[in-house]
Amino acid sequence: MTRAAVIGAGSWGTTFAKVLADAGCETTVLARRREIATGIQVRHANDDYLPGTVLPASLHATTDPARALAGAELVCLSVPSQRLRSVLAGVRDALPRDAVIMSLIKGLERGTQLRMSEVVIGELGWAPERVAVLSGPNIAREIAAEQPAAAAVASADGALAERIAACVTNRYFSAFANDDVIGTEYGGVLKNLIALAVGIVSGVGYGENTKAAIITRGLDEISRFAVALGGHPDTMTGLAGLGDLIATCESTLSRNHTAGRLLGEGHPLDEVVRRMQQTAEGIGSVRPVLDLAREHGVDMPIVSQVSLVLEGRMNPADLTVHIAPRNEDVLTDARAGGGRQR
Amino acid sequence: MTRAAVIGAGSWGTTFAKVLADAGCETTVLARRREIATGIQVRHANDDYLPGTVLPASLHATTDPARALAGAELVCLSVPSQRLRSVLAGVRDALPRDAVIMSLIKGLERGTQLRMSEVVIGELGWAPERVAVLSGPNIAREIAAEQPAAAAVASADGALAERIAACVTNRYFSAFANDDVIGTEYGGVLKNLIALAVGIVSGVGYGENTKAAIITRGLDEISRFAVALGGHPDTMTGLAGLGDLIATCESTLSRNHTAGRLLGEGHPLDEVVRRMQQTAEGIGSVRPVLDLAREHGVDMPIVSQVSLVLEGRMNPADLTVHIAPRNEDVLTDARAGGGRQR
Repeated sequence: MTRAAVIGAGSWGTTFAKVLADAGCETTVLARRREIATGIQVRHANDDYLPGTVLPASLHATTDPARALAGAELVCLSVPSQRLRSVLAGVRDALPRDAVIMSLIKGLERGTQLRMSEVVIGELGWAPERVAVLSGPNIAREIAAEQPAAAAVASADGALAERIAACVTNRYFSAFANDDVIGTEYGGVLKNLIALAVGIVSGVGYGENTKAAIITRGLDEISRFAVALGGHPDTMTGLAGLGDLIATCESTLSRNHTAGRLLGEGHPLDEVVRRMQQTAEGIGSVRPVLDLAREHGVDMPIVSQVSLVLEGRMNPADLTVHIAPRNEDVLTDARAGGGRQR
Repeated sequence: MTRAAVIGAGSWGTTFAKVLADAGCETTVLARRREIATGIQVRHANDDYLPGTVLPASLHATTDPARALAGAELVCLSVPSQRLRSVLAGVRDALPRDAVIMSLIKGLERGTQLRMSEVVIGELGWAPERVAVLSGPNIAREIAAEQPAAAAVASADGALAERIAACVTNRYFSAFANDDVIGTEYGGVLKNLIALAVGIVSGVGYGENTKAAIITRGLDEISRFAVALGGHPDTMTGLAGLGDLIATCESTLSRNHTAGRLLGEGHPLDEVVRRMQQTAEGIGSVRPVLDLAREHGVDMPIVSQVSLVLEGRMNPADLTVHIAPRNEDVLTDARAGGGRQR
């Protein structure tokens, strides 16, 4: 694969286009706004979404889907999760017949609760073997600064995942292949919910012990969810699960963490949403994930408490107090061996 | 269990004595220095090790082993790992015949490479069923401030671990029982080595993506080590493994993290050791752990690289660049299913 396109010129789309260009791919970004496309194409900069980063001179950008996608072997998607379906409809005719598509998007479609790869497959009618996803601890700004980072690439076709991983790996970005699309995508969705919980207890004023306990019990909780929905437990302790969870929970740049912190400090939900320039994806995922969890018989005590805090029905300071015991009790029952909690 | 003693009046020993007293145990601290004992007993304070904390009025302290240990049902050990053997020799005669001992110490005995519970069992000649260990994400200052925290209590006698866990749990501290002493103790040793690695890349100037990737791959690496030595994998993804690893890596209070950061900033090892008021336990554990790993055929690429940085044979900035690929390769081979890395 030597020709790639990235649909979406936000901070992550632009950063990943730089990753591709720096890995030697001839890469074009499809932007919605003309001034963004011109900035990337002419000034090698995206001042709105990635200020301060000098983009590779080899990176192209356009607002014309036909030009962006012509001859593309790998088409990467980086648009807001709730806009994916309409974006796909708009580019469908321009997609090359033999291209593969990779979603860089973390989220579920509201209403349908579908994962992004499911939206792609459903909307385009493509075979799952032509679709891949990439997820991991990938804060855009740090990767744009060429700090070492790694991610998981998953596809139902493991060999395709390996080809893509090799294609996108460069001197500062390493991708690793697996065939667990379900776990890889849910990792990127579920970590936001635990990041909200960690943000909430940070806002209350608690420190590293409390946060570490929530992350540890949270990983177990979201792993049980992902496994119940068909994911592999190893995915959840890997880059797309634990790795992304840690980076999101620890990053003060994270919108989900910030939203949680504001809630923990006592701000009401409507004010928090108003204060967040972009919506924290996690807030919108709480209800769909809890619905899916109930359907599949998975108990999610941390996410349930986050939901209560969001609804104003639980004092943020009370969230942690009950977490460990409830969880560990649940765990004891859920564990295959029936052993005591470790 | 209603009568407890804590041997050692450092920050963790004093904090855990407060945990016990707040859980309703009649608790006495055995201090080495008279002024510390007097401070706790009379002024309810340990200004040297826990400044600003008001200790429970019910907490006693003495420098006399016979008085501290008389009638104690639970004897907790919180002394420097390399002093444990001599401390045990000094209190042996004062230990009640039917007491149980719980180590709160994280470390290996240099030379013998024994875990702390092994030192206790060997030095006292006690049955393993009378010995327990406690470990987890337990930064003393945060627990002293009564922020919610949790830990694992392990004993070869699982019922004893459960009795102790119930006995030490209070409104801000929750303990959970298991019977994996090996994993629980190694968790507290091995996390220091990964914290050194995270500190090193922080010192180089890398951000959350890099740290998250090292923690994720580091957890896998230390899990393989612990399992090879007889521990249970679930312990390593629990409070005593992952939980402690996260708290240590993220806490800027951590000596191991600080030592790593100074190394990453380019300070030579002898200067780092000189600048650290107390020795970072992790530095001393690198060599013994790598020796044990070699004996048991466990590849530890992150710890190996930390060792090279400590010896001045690797540039700290190079540490992360190679971590992910090496590790993931190792992983692919090591994994039971032989599947691709997730």
